[in-house]
Amino acid sequence: MIPNDIEILNEVRLHTYQTPYFFTSRNILEINYQKFLNMFEGSEVYYALKANSDPKILTLLNGFGCGFEAASFYEIEQLLAVGIQPDRIIYGTSVKPSTHIMRAFDVGVNRFAADSHEELEKIAQFAPGSRVIIRAKVNDSGSVFAFSERFGAPKEAVKALVVYARHLKLKTYGLSFHVGSQATHVDHWANAISSLKPIMDQLDEEGIRIEILDIGGGFPVIYNNHKDLPHLDDIAKDVHKALKKLPYQPKIIMEPGRGIVASSTVMVSEVISRTIRNGKVWLVMDGGIYNCLYEAMIHQGTTQYDVRTMAMVEGDVDMLNYGITGPTGDSLDVITRSISLPSFISEGDRLIFENSGAYTITMASPFNGFPKPELYLS
Amino acid sequence: MIPNDIEILNEVRLHTYQTPYFFTSRNILEINYQKFLNMFEGSEVYYALKANSDPKILTLLNGFGCGFEAASFYEIEQLLAVGIQPDRIIYGTSVKPSTHIMRAFDVGVNRFAADSHEELEKIAQFAPGSRVIIRAKVNDSGSVFAFSERFGAPKEAVKALVVYARHLKLKTYGLSFHVGSQATHVDHWANAISSLKPIMDQLDEEGIRIEILDIGGGFPVIYNNHKDLPHLDDIAKDVHKALKKLPYQPKIIMEPGRGIVASSTVMVSEVISRTIRNGKVWLVMDGGIYNCLYEAMIHQGTTQYDVRTMAMVEGDVDMLNYGITGPTGDSLDVITRSISLPSFISEGDRLIFENSGAYTITMASPFNGFPKPELYLS
Repeated sequence: MIPNDIEILNEVRLHTYQTPYFFTSRNILEINYQKFLNMFEGSEVYYALKANSDPKILTLLNGFGCGFEAASFYEIEQLLAVGIQPDRIIYGTSVKPSTHIMRAFDVGVNRFAADSHEELEKIAQFAPGSRVIIRAKVNDSGSVFAFSERFGAPKEAVKALVVYARHLKLKTYGLSFHVGSQATHVDHWANAISSLKPIMDQLDEEGIRIEILDIGGGFPVIYNNHKDLPHLDDIAKDVHKALKKLPYQPKIIMEPGRGIVASSTVMVSEVISRTIRNGKVWLVMDGGIYNCLYEAMIHQGTTQYDVRTMAMVEGDVDMLNYGITGPTGDSLDVITRSISLPSFISEGDRLIFENSGAYTITMASPFNGFPKPELYLS
Repeated sequence: MIPNDIEILNEVRLHTYQTPYFFTSRNILEINYQKFLNMFEGSEVYYALKANSDPKILTLLNGFGCGFEAASFYEIEQLLAVGIQPDRIIYGTSVKPSTHIMRAFDVGVNRFAADSHEELEKIAQFAPGSRVIIRAKVNDSGSVFAFSERFGAPKEAVKALVVYARHLKLKTYGLSFHVGSQATHVDHWANAISSLKPIMDQLDEEGIRIEILDIGGGFPVIYNNHKDLPHLDDIAKDVHKALKKLPYQPKIIMEPGRGIVASSTVMVSEVISRTIRNGKVWLVMDGGIYNCLYEAMIHQGTTQYDVRTMAMVEGDVDMLNYGITGPTGDSLDVITRSISLPSFISEGDRLIFENSGAYTITMASPFNGFPKPELYLS
């Protein structure tokens, strides 16, 4: 157990909220944010709020001085609603509805991602003179959630897009890439930067310099079945080396979502039934796939959360292999088919699902009527 | 194209609502409901509202005289809110939180499913004297969504549960089973009934007769990749034969969800971008996996919706193979990777996703900020 875990587990035990609920440690959230900022001097962090857009989280991050990466005008509205200024917002999705570009521009957002000629034309029409970030496709193999099928211009097209953006009187603000969410190779960010070097060289020769390099998100988080992962320090070390080889040093922007919020938060859920099915003991929880832990289903076997009992268990305890399900009558509502926990767990006991701050509440649906849980702060 | 399709497509074309939205034909909804009722004389239909709990749908079905199968107390609250009486409600999930049983009983619901001793004890404690339906595990192979891992008592345990329920002073109201959602074998319902015959024989010998036999849901719906499916008439024919062999004739209850609502409803979505990726033409829609067509992701390649253009296309038209995605920046937001549609489709055009009334709105999450769409009635 890492120190973060102990801190948040101790905090959780001080409260008794109605389950299921999420509990966020302000302290861990700030530590995570500072870690990213410390990676590179003068860099900026734009938190990808799709990971967790709870207003309390957004307000805390805003207080730290964080920027925000939005995926729709609806998300921009969420940011404005908690008092975040438009000049701290990047509209980072590279394919956007025209109406959303227009509305974002209307409220003062003027940084947009693009990866195609038609997208640049939309931005030029509905957000004239804005700053654009051209998103390049990079190697995202080894990431749990790869994006290259849908997003990113092929590298041989990037220069033409930068030139076309200038032709459309847009400001060629930067280049970006995304190595895929929950990336597992330490050198993917550095390799992506190296692969953009020839493009930057060519542009530089033609007198075009980009202001920022957006190295995206994808920074991995520890789950029960994802323990041996690259550390931020090591990623940064490689990235630094790759940056030094560029013709000049653009400002670094990062767009972490999962990397900032996941380990700041736990989900607390109550056992509503302990039943035996086919000889196996199942714990049925009031927090399941649909209302709480969505990624555990989509990638069942991939996102497996560490689970702890609310009672800290010291010394030797009889352990048992359980399956854990959610509360719905749906066959997919299985959190895990195999986890070792103390054998004494019964109806009414509470379990803590660790590192569950990302892609949980934002993906919750009220299926079978179970509502989206509340999030509480330490 | 079946007549239903033409009717609803014509209706949709009369309106211009903000996309994405769902559009339900009252007429088709009633036809579907009556079909189930006509299957068996004196039978009752309890619509499984997890499939689609829009208040307008619930109100219409209530007006037809339909009953309702709820999966949580939250769903019971939704039913009460539109004026549905508790004596038209069955709480059909076989594993329930004690608090939900208690609250359901408090408002007047007194029919509960169970498939274990501990569940019967909970019902006896929190809803004393209620009527219980013992859910048996049956063969659900061949169904897209199988439930037997999590729900249903093994057949050799059913008799003991009925006896135990009486011991707990609960009313042994009925037996139930579920062949799995989107079942593909015509004889699964009949076989399930036949497999319960020995239990009913034994109980009958001991003077215990059940009042109802709940043959569940699972009645399949036509999707693009699921066309050759059993018809309701043929299912009923087999079921009739199986019923005749029972020692006496209990009342038949059905719990369709998908079977009633799916084909009554279409999803209408607008093209927000037409882009080429790796040589393939993609239509990016404002309605995608997360906000509209959830099952197209979970079982990508399994639930594929038929898609039509808003303009009725007559005669020879150049067709093109497209991929269709939703509006989020997420790699999983792919509705289909291959569908043939007229080649002329461009930004601003509208597409109609057929038979999309079930497990769509109830599973919607506002991921990336895109809100749950509205549902309109013809």
